[in-house]
Amino acid sequence: MPDERSRPPLVSFVSAGPGAADLITLRGLQRLQRARVVLFDALTDPALRDHAPKARWIDVGKRGFCDSMRQAHINALLVQWATREHGVVRLKGGDAGIFGRLEEEIEALQAAGIPYEVVPGVTAALAAAAAAGRPLTRRGRGRSVALTTAVATDARGQPVLRSGRSADTEVFYMAGRQLAALGRRLQAAGWPDDTAVMVVSRAGCADQLVSDHRLHGLAAAAVLHSGRPTVVTVGVGAQALGQARASADCPTPAGLNLHHEVSIIADNSAAGAASTPA
Amino acid sequence: MPDERSRPPLVSFVSAGPGAADLITLRGLQRLQRARVVLFDALTDPALRDHAPKARWIDVGKRGFCDSMRQAHINALLVQWATREHGVVRLKGGDAGIFGRLEEEIEALQAAGIPYEVVPGVTAALAAAAAAGRPLTRRGRGRSVALTTAVATDARGQPVLRSGRSADTEVFYMAGRQLAALGRRLQAAGWPDDTAVMVVSRAGCADQLVSDHRLHGLAAAAVLHSGRPTVVTVGVGAQALGQARASADCPTPAGLNLHHEVSIIADNSAAGAASTPA
Repeated sequence: MPDERSRPPLVSFVSAGPGAADLITLRGLQRLQRARVVLFDALTDPALRDHAPKARWIDVGKRGFCDSMRQAHINALLVQWATREHGVVRLKGGDAGIFGRLEEEIEALQAAGIPYEVVPGVTAALAAAAAAGRPLTRRGRGRSVALTTAVATDARGQPVLRSGRSADTEVFYMAGRQLAALGRRLQAAGWPDDTAVMVVSRAGCADQLVSDHRLHGLAAAAVLHSGRPTVVTVGVGAQALGQARASADCPTPAGLNLHHEVSIIADNSAAGAASTPA
Repeated sequence: MPDERSRPPLVSFVSAGPGAADLITLRGLQRLQRARVVLFDALTDPALRDHAPKARWIDVGKRGFCDSMRQAHINALLVQWATREHGVVRLKGGDAGIFGRLEEEIEALQAAGIPYEVVPGVTAALAAAAAAGRPLTRRGRGRSVALTTAVATDARGQPVLRSGRSADTEVFYMAGRQLAALGRRLQAAGWPDDTAVMVVSRAGCADQLVSDHRLHGLAAAAVLHSGRPTVVTVGVGAQALGQARASADCPTPAGLNLHHEVSIIADNSAAGAASTPA
């Protein structure tokens, strides 16, 4: 097709959303539909493939610190495909610009002189809040939200747990494996031990799980969310809204004012003003 | 339709994304398509109406502090429509859970015993970052992102400007009218006066504008973005990526590695390591 070949190649970084295929944007969908090559991560919902059945799908996924395929290799693959093919989509979970190592891939394209665009998406923190029906900001008392990775690497490349207290609501990504340690760190950083903590795994998917805790009991969430992509929300944005709190005290998920089936497990040790229905 | 009437009424809070109609999610679109009533804000892209042409569209928009229709009235309208009709969609700009006063509307529904769901979306901070092709997190040095409203009200209900320094990258919503004051406050809060600041208005739309500044020159952005929904990104996430910085020094938008036409105006007073092409 000479018409297409006369245009410069273009790589679209498409944010797939947090897991469920229907949380991609229309713009992202449109880029997928015209893609010839899709480089995707292992965590991407396989249902997204239905939108680009004729494209070549290449798994460049890496999980946690296993890094089954290193970033440098992904960068090289991206440049190779973009040089060879028009309609290359680099599909990334959540929003590509939040903990997606997007900058490394963009810089590889820039170095090769290849144009690109970024299609934004739903990041996991927002999907988790929506899953529980709890906004991350609250008028008058929840004016800032910090998105933070719970895991970083130290100078020797070893994983270290980071935590702090910088905003009214803090949302921790990639915290699933270290909930007990995260709870201790947050207490050390100045959060009261009865601070509301909401743990959500596979947010936006049919089997999403939402559980309520207090900071001192956060470790209890580890088994429930084990092996699932997990987001931890701490502070104002984790607090149930007025009547919803009553639902959380209800033993069955049927009592919840949510369309999707959600299990909310209240921490039995939780008490205080916030847990009393208004 | 007796089948529909036997189901409980359900309100879907649908996040419309930051402005462009194609940044809504597929799930949000699907809710719109089956809606009978849509309560929307003035800022919502009119093109979204095409997805629900037979629904009754009700403008409940309010802008800034004008509050042309008060929140209490919106809450009441929402409950009235949800009681009367199935398929009520409450469409909100950006992500409903970020500075959307969602909690007040949810609590009104809870008080009336009306079930609801929240469909998450693309919040303005992410759309702004995508518009400029700059991720908000950067590996190793940009590990946290704070979303903050620049404007709050004091005890007397008067608008006050808030600012701080709590994360590697801070994104300020609703800052467009007070850029000079925001710049001064951020300097007072400890940000160096040559900190990179990116101002984006109408992110994601065809006429989006991206401009680069240093903190001390932030006031210069006021005229350029005047009267447009504006997001201000400060710190690591505002820094151009390696080669992109060279593009920002280029006088024409054509030099940019972006698919959509974007104007990046480099602050002439900006200097230092970050502005030198790698």
